[in-house]
Amino acid sequence: MFPRSFFLQLIEKDFSEFSDFLKSANDEEVRQLLAELHPADIADIVENCEEEEQTRLMALLNNSQAAEVLSLVEEHLKSDVVEAISEEKLPEIIDEMDSDDATDILEELPEKEAKEILDAMPTEESAPVRQLLSYEEDSAGGLMQTELVSVHPDTKLFEAAEKVRKESEKVRNVGNLYVVNAEGVFKGMVPIQALVLEDPQKSVAEVMKTDYFFVDVNQDQEKVAEIFRKYDLISLPVVDQQHKLLGRITIDDIVDVIQEEAREDIYRMAGVDVEEHVADSAMRSIRLRFPWLLFNLGTAILASLVVSFFESTIQQVVLLAVFMPIVAGMGGNAGTQSLAVITRGLALGELNFANAKRALFKESLSGFLNGILMGLIMGGITYFWSGNSVLAMVLGLAMVANMLIANFTGAAIPLLLKWIKVDPALASGVIVTTFTDIMGFLAFLGLATVFLKYLLP
Amino acid sequence: MFPRSFFLQLIEKDFSEFSDFLKSANDEEVRQLLAELHPADIADIVENCEEEEQTRLMALLNNSQAAEVLSLVEEHLKSDVVEAISEEKLPEIIDEMDSDDATDILEELPEKEAKEILDAMPTEESAPVRQLLSYEEDSAGGLMQTELVSVHPDTKLFEAAEKVRKESEKVRNVGNLYVVNAEGVFKGMVPIQALVLEDPQKSVAEVMKTDYFFVDVNQDQEKVAEIFRKYDLISLPVVDQQHKLLGRITIDDIVDVIQEEAREDIYRMAGVDVEEHVADSAMRSIRLRFPWLLFNLGTAILASLVVSFFESTIQQVVLLAVFMPIVAGMGGNAGTQSLAVITRGLALGELNFANAKRALFKESLSGFLNGILMGLIMGGITYFWSGNSVLAMVLGLAMVANMLIANFTGAAIPLLLKWIKVDPALASGVIVTTFTDIMGFLAFLGLATVFLKYLLP
Repeated sequence: MFPRSFFLQLIEKDFSEFSDFLKSANDEEVRQLLAELHPADIADIVENCEEEEQTRLMALLNNSQAAEVLSLVEEHLKSDVVEAISEEKLPEIIDEMDSDDATDILEELPEKEAKEILDAMPTEESAPVRQLLSYEEDSAGGLMQTELVSVHPDTKLFEAAEKVRKESEKVRNVGNLYVVNAEGVFKGMVPIQALVLEDPQKSVAEVMKTDYFFVDVNQDQEKVAEIFRKYDLISLPVVDQQHKLLGRITIDDIVDVIQEEAREDIYRMAGVDVEEHVADSAMRSIRLRFPWLLFNLGTAILASLVVSFFESTIQQVVLLAVFMPIVAGMGGNAGTQSLAVITRGLALGELNFANAKRALFKESLSGFLNGILMGLIMGGITYFWSGNSVLAMVLGLAMVANMLIANFTGAAIPLLLKWIKVDPALASGVIVTTFTDIMGFLAFLGLATVFLKYLLP
Repeated sequence: MFPRSFFLQLIEKDFSEFSDFLKSANDEEVRQLLAELHPADIADIVENCEEEEQTRLMALLNNSQAAEVLSLVEEHLKSDVVEAISEEKLPEIIDEMDSDDATDILEELPEKEAKEILDAMPTEESAPVRQLLSYEEDSAGGLMQTELVSVHPDTKLFEAAEKVRKESEKVRNVGNLYVVNAEGVFKGMVPIQALVLEDPQKSVAEVMKTDYFFVDVNQDQEKVAEIFRKYDLISLPVVDQQHKLLGRITIDDIVDVIQEEAREDIYRMAGVDVEEHVADSAMRSIRLRFPWLLFNLGTAILASLVVSFFESTIQQVVLLAVFMPIVAGMGGNAGTQSLAVITRGLALGELNFANAKRALFKESLSGFLNGILMGLIMGGITYFWSGNSVLAMVLGLAMVANMLIANFTGAAIPLLLKWIKVDPALASGVIVTTFTDIMGFLAFLGLATVFLKYLLP
């Protein structure tokens, strides 16, 4: 009914054709279309619908479709979609979901409602979800699912294959088989292709990889993502302190973590709340941005206070007001460059305290040397503009000083925040530019005041 | 020899212990250690070594180890590591690599050297690499590898399993079997677990998924990453215009693409060359940052030219020089917020031309309304500071105007760049802050000039 071109439209997020269809079609027609679409496409459509259409679409999906769609809806829109589902259907749908996805949904719901749903689920389904709800959202425990195929080391491979067959309905994307002993302790891993490649009479212990990676359930999700990235993993077992297997994390969740962390870095450098999304209403944007702007206003006033100390100097040489923004601005740019490189280096794990000193020195040096270059250029321009060699020198020197300080600050602040265990991207952008504004004004207007008698027309 | 704590040290990038070991150990001891380490850890060590140690380590690895290590070394360090390998060993090592990794290496080498290596390789190995070299680096063709297991629809599953066994040495991580007809046209996909789950007497045609995704070989890598992310894929077939199967892309390469794209977005917003890395030398940083800073200097001079038009106004009311940076700075902040949200929305595919108009309107509205709030606050502060109600009004109005313009510009510029098919993150940061500086000075000082007689002390 909808050909491949429709799939392309979905990738392009052009929902106009679909929206027209939805208005004119009866329930049976819509149901037929939904049966032909990928759950990820349905999720996309639902995300872009009005409330009323959302309710209709979610009602027309069967439970297993609805479970998949709900698990694929963007994090920040999940609670909207949950509200579009009837109260009777919701527990059944959550029951159908993988444990990690069900946990994500229940975390979005009011506690009372979450409890009611858990109580309505069969214990074998609700127990793992209750367990998962106890872990921090941004830890390995918050990412993992309990659905996996585990085997004992003594199991023969043909028996393991039998177990995969039995459990394949509950465990989507089996991937690896996890080897645990009688106490549930993680012993190693058998990739599913071993069941095809190896002699079925061999035991699991004979073919398992024992040097496989694992993470502690409380490990931070950024670290987990780093391990996935470094070792090119598809899935990773999660263990407790006693090395007992608790669950597994799969690469699709890690891709989301990486995207999310990158967005946070960009947002925080720009002073945007991490909760904001491009599809938010204007009112929500205004509310979320207001505190950041207010904080910025405070820092801007601080910088202008510095300028106010030098009112009488500016009064006498008004040209200083013309050049003043250049010194501050160039410092801000240099500092932001430093900040971006260091923040990204920290995020990708390329930088840590072992090589921090070198990075700090390098940033300061490059700020200083680029400062000299910019100072020379701008000093030259100023000399031609004003004919005043002292003004040119004051401007050049202020530029060198400010760019050196800017690069040092741009590197030092994220490292410092990391050291005191605050997210290194947090507000660094605002702090760095405030600092370079203040130091820029101070250096330029301060030097100008010292050499004032040579600057007077 | 090196216990798990050593693995943790590697994750923390603390190489001091290893470096001491390397200095005192003889070749045999080093070789033994290398045999126990994961190639990704060896790659990490090699990246952090001096040239001399790199040469020694690469010489002590056997060819298949060296091939894996080389493929795992960070993109920008590959050419250094290649130089650390002896000329005789290099063709053998490249011969051992997967086709996509071999292509990445040959792209780094001078054309003449690459040609020599290709000529020295057996044709069956060099032909696919030659083919891959012909695609754009940041297209699907530039990401794909030719190693995969393909089967005909009529093949029985037990025969397919036999084929997997035969090819498993050449094809790492088989993952899915790709179904192609006699002409090589892509028909569908069989997940490897089907070989375990299904009756071995069934044919491939009976169990294959025909609604599977694929991409054109010239598709941009950002789009490819979006498809992976949206549909939670592990691998994706690549086809040509005639729908013939050319290769496959695997998720580990996509994780790298996502990281790389995020870094590019951050760098470009901050005005940093995408080629720069945190481990670069100071000289390289200076060289890479210089053009950006020079461009910034140009834009800063432009802004200060605007100020210079109003020299006589400032001369009369020097307090304007004090407040001037606040108006410009707040515009810069608001514009950067807008820019971050829109750029990220474009990168994640949440935003496109279909919903761009709405986003543009929303950004302008929130700039306007937050401008009113900030204008009222700052107007109030100015009134208390200076006791001049006209100055307070001028400042407040300029702030509203500049924040409205800032948000509009912050949203419009990346959309415009996307529309004319320039990377939307490119230089947007610099352009937006230049624009807000100019408009801020113009609005504030312009209004002040109009109302000058009310501002005079």
